Amino acid sequence: MPSAIITLTTDFGLRDPYVAEMKAVILSINPNVTIVDITHQIEKFNIRMGAYILAAATPHFPKGTIHVAVVDPGVGTKRRAILVQTKGGYFIGPDNGVLMLAARNQGVRHIYRIENPKFMLPRVSDTFHGRDVFAPAAAYLAKGELPSKFGSEIRDVVMPVFAKIMRRKGVLIGEVIHVDDFGNVVTNFGEKELEFLKGKETVNIRLKGVRLRFKLCRAYADVKPQEPLAIFGSHNFLEISVNQGNAAERFGVKVGDKVAVYTA
Amino acid sequence: MPSAIITLTTDFGLRDPYVAEMKAVILSINPNVTIVDITHQIEKFNIRMGAYILAAATPHFPKGTIHVAVVDPGVGTKRRAILVQTKGGYFIGPDNGVLMLAARNQGVRHIYRIENPKFMLPRVSDTFHGRDVFAPAAAYLAKGELPSKFGSEIRDVVMPVFAKIMRRKGVLIGEVIHVDDFGNVVTNFGEKELEFLKGKETVNIRLKGVRLRFKLCRAYADVKPQEPLAIFGSHNFLEISVNQGNAAERFGVKVGDKVAVYTA
Amino acid sequence: MPSAIITLTTDFGLRDPYVAEMKAVILSINPNVTIVDITHQIEKFNIRMGAYILAAATPHFPKGTIHVAVVDPGVGTKRRAILVQTKGGYFIGPDNGVLMLAARNQGVRHIYRIENPKFMLPRVSDTFHGRDVFAPAAAYLAKGELPSKFGSEIRDVVMPVFAKIMRRKGVLIGEVIHVDDFGNVVTNFGEKELEFLKGKETVNIRLKGVRLRFKLCRAYADVKPQEPLAIFGSHNFLEISVNQGNAAERFGVKVGDKVAVYTA
Repeated sequence: MPSAIITLTTDFGLRDPYVAEMKAVILSINPNVTIVDITHQIEKFNIRMGAYILAAATPHFPKGTIHVAVVDPGVGTKRRAILVQTKGGYFIGPDNGVLMLAARNQGVRHIYRIENPKFMLPRVSDTFHGRDVFAPAAAYLAKGELPSKFGSEIRDVVMPVFAKIMRRKGVLIGEVIHVDDFGNVVTNFGEKELEFLKGKETVNIRLKGVRLRFKLCRAYADVKPQEPLAIFGSHNFLEISVNQGNAAERFGVKVGDKVAVYTA
Repeated sequence: MPSAIITLTTDFGLRDPYVAEMKAVILSINPNVTIVDITHQIEKFNIRMGAYILAAATPHFPKGTIHVAVVDPGVGTKRRAILVQTKGGYFIGPDNGVLMLAARNQGVRHIYRIENPKFMLPRVSDTFHGRDVFAPAAAYLAKGELPSKFGSEIRDVVMPVFAKIMRRKGVLIGEVIHVDDFGNVVTNFGEKELEFLKGKETVNIRLKGVRLRFKLCRAYADVKPQEPLAIFGSHNFLEISVNQGNAAERFGVKVGDKVAVYTA
Repeated sequence: MPSAIITLTTDFGLRDPYVAEMKAVILSINPNVTIVDITHQIEKFNIRMGAYILAAATPHFPKGTIHVAVVDPGVGTKRRAILVQTKGGYFIGPDNGVLMLAARNQGVRHIYRIENPKFMLPRVSDTFHGRDVFAPAAAYLAKGELPSKFGSEIRDVVMPVFAKIMRRKGVLIGEVIHVDDFGNVVTNFGEKELEFLKGKETVNIRLKGVRLRFKLCRAYADVKPQEPLAIFGSHNFLEISVNQGNAAERFGVKVGDKVAVYTA
């Protein structure tokens, strides 16, 4: 039997002891796990970015993988700690939305509040639930504890707020949900919303008040180096990119900016 | 039997081949280990920071864990390589203090000089003992070699220099020992030195020559977002923080700055 | 039997989901592997840097290790995906040179094109072959699939372009191939090309048009802190360093700059 996989997604950065402390707690409780870092460079307290990255990173993990995400501005308040059981695996973290985009994509089965002190460190601080609550919960779950043992089942969890696509005369309006490390500008337009582009070679997009025509490509290299393009990226969202360049810098675009796609 | 754990703490950064070379050496000698990165972003040559992070990161690891720390400005000089056996595990690295804060916290049992060439790479460079001396030592130790086989027992090791708390009329004077990635300002005041604060709701602190009153909190969220607070953080040192903000930037504070806590 | 080792070298950075997606794919196909990150901070699209880091990082890994490198400006074009079998292990990535410096150092045995869809994800994107082609290839190879099953054997692969050492009257001319995180300036002069330095105590080097005399050292600490030196570094290339300082900043040197070593 292969060892359970626990993934970690946080805004802790890589200089501090915090990530290692979480791993120490996990390995102390359950040495038979494989820990995979998704990222520790979520922008501090940016729940939406955490939710987006988690949702993008998780689809390919094996069934039963346990995903821990800690972007937790409300640590020490009454915000709840939750364990979400999905059709694909488990999600553990604060009830602030960071887990729910990824969890919903897998199909939510049950959501439990984490309240059983048996599955926490003996002394729970008010500043670091990643180490004191979420890491031990993941380790015990990986050991075979039943999700229902962690606390009472709940239904009313916080969902992350992402813009819905808006339909206006002649345009669909969405927004930039991520700018990746290459400068690719990821929008919230999925292939479905833009089905009318099928067979088209170009697409007109308004960015920062300026209407531009982009070549609609399948590969970055369908245009010359340093030329812009529009593409459905590796997660099937519409992206604005520059072949071998940085689109976010080129167009001065950042997360949250509005993006309009012309329908005619 | 679970595999041994080896942790790595260095100032190598993450761009270069150095960390991977250490892991390659470890896995070549002993494939049955779990390697955990603590951090590779210790400020270059900053032994005190290395000592602090190692001491903060290590308490939760399982008994017997082997911690390798390489912040080593004296590599290639006569500074010694040491293996410290504690009540909780093992520490391997240069004899410059980087290991000793963490080791002392666990209770030191024996300190050995690493001098047996059997447990080094065949060719030891004068520039990279992390790969040539410390990584192989950790891998052989994890394989079951006795600590006493690595070299002669010694007693007079270098201790890291941290400021002691000073008592002046009406104030205790300490210093900033770490600024974490969130901008939390960690001081060297433990809960013990500040016992007189028990039951108090505020604390007066002098930072950069300015006396300020801070609310004394148990959780960051005990104040409104962007408001400052004082708190005993997850390692039980007094921290100056800003809820969902960056205290080091707000107050212009950096590592080494003096901090005075008023006793009356 | 110890688990197979798969290493990853990319220009993906650490903020995005891409590295975790590769690991998810690997662990889904083959949970019995140990994954080691070499680096994900290769400069975007910098094939030469990827080739250098991979070649520097790989010599100490156990025999049979599988190295995946993805610095892939041509993803989605007709550039081929290749699997290189060497005397020491395997290299998987795009046919653009990134693998071949490391592979050649180990002794190339066979090179196969990766074209068998059985060893790819069911849906291969045109933007992310790291996840869709290279990760699954590595996982299946680690499972015991024969290299020859991945595709047809080929011979004419792309080699990375590094400057050859040039001989002029009284000087050898090379270049800076890497600046490490410490600011050490790594040149492409090996010990062999500079054999005439044997027994010498200093070396005259022209950097940025200025002729300077450097002490030729075995250890950084052979000079005082903040003093410059020349040294054959841990990979046996001539490096310009500053003891406990940053040579690249001191001399204003960057990758690609010419370096002349005076022979008399």
